[in-house]
Amino acid sequence: MLLKENVVKTKLGKLPYIYPIPITLVGANVDGKPNFETIGDVGLMGINPALVYIASHRDHYTNLGILANGTYSINFPNTAMLAQADYCGGVSGRDADPQGANPCKAELFEVFYGELETAPMIVACPVSLECRVIQEFSIQKRQIFIAEVVQTYADAQYVIEDGNTRGLVDLTQLDPILYALDNRYYSIGKPIGVGYQEAKRVKN
Amino acid sequence: MLLKENVVKTKLGKLPYIYPIPITLVGANVDGKPNFETIGDVGLMGINPALVYIASHRDHYTNLGILANGTYSINFPNTAMLAQADYCGGVSGRDADPQGANPCKAELFEVFYGELETAPMIVACPVSLECRVIQEFSIQKRQIFIAEVVQTYADAQYVIEDGNTRGLVDLTQLDPILYALDNRYYSIGKPIGVGYQEAKRVKN
Repeated sequence: MLLKENVVKTKLGKLPYIYPIPITLVGANVDGKPNFETIGDVGLMGINPALVYIASHRDHYTNLGILANGTYSINFPNTAMLAQADYCGGVSGRDADPQGANPCKAELFEVFYGELETAPMIVACPVSLECRVIQEFSIQKRQIFIAEVVQTYADAQYVIEDGNTRGLVDLTQLDPILYALDNRYYSIGKPIGVGYQEAKRVKN
Repeated sequence: MLLKENVVKTKLGKLPYIYPIPITLVGANVDGKPNFETIGDVGLMGINPALVYIASHRDHYTNLGILANGTYSINFPNTAMLAQADYCGGVSGRDADPQGANPCKAELFEVFYGELETAPMIVACPVSLECRVIQEFSIQKRQIFIAEVVQTYADAQYVIEDGNTRGLVDLTQLDPILYALDNRYYSIGKPIGVGYQEAKRVKN
């Protein structure tokens, strides 16, 4: 190991520059009506069992529904849904008005429900995760909702069957929306390698 | 809102299909020596204050260093570093052997330290976050380390100055490695929009 004593790096301050961020639409029933919030602060906490989290500002309208029902959904829009995804990040469900300039978010989407019956999911999204909260806590101004995935839904056109296992097509077909703290949205690029195969170039 | 009663979606089971996943190299000093672990289970928990998390299996060697020092780093390799990033996800620091087939991970990288002095960072990575743990807990087989970002480092070539604020160039230049549960790595695509601008197409 070569320790570099004189590394010249630029300090940017306390910038949580995680990149890229996946853009998701998180769904919850608030007062019995579906609401959707655009969230990038989402991630994995385990594969088996399947655990995910979202971090949502405590003032967000969607949080009320998650707390009331103990359920939410994570829906992955594709790039054709960019306008709707951006809209759901900028307008609160509190301020939406069916007769006004801000359409209700639920009006934007066809919605379906799954096993939990209280986690609204978006038909147009290629993939949706139906989630049951198993732990909730607050940190600074955020509420963190850790959940188990109880069911994963996908459109048949994106599913590949390989014997008894079902998987999903590659990301170029799922066509997700990515984001970064430069406030830009991005598309996915190309497949560049396979897990646990590229390492051979280091070992050899 | 149109409720779809007869939606035909394929059920994939309890699959935590968050996509894409950012590939990072998490650094910690274990017994005084830098070790790096490839982690995609990383995300944002707040912007201001700057909070991030990683989820690392309790058996991972890197965890020992994080627990001992209360610090870690998150380094973002670019696609030129794919082989090393893949290697660090497949070999434990416990099993690395300087004389054997598995080179020590620290040997792969030039390392520098920042303000915390115990969080090793990788010179070759365009961006590194230096993190202090503020909360740690276990869930299932994972240890979750929530941390504040105390400093963000970037190579000068990736930094743009705009008056008194410093930011980073767009992701096509940072060239991150992405991953998905199909076990493929991906590159970033193209900029497709700007936050809070695309929504206009919904409102109008």
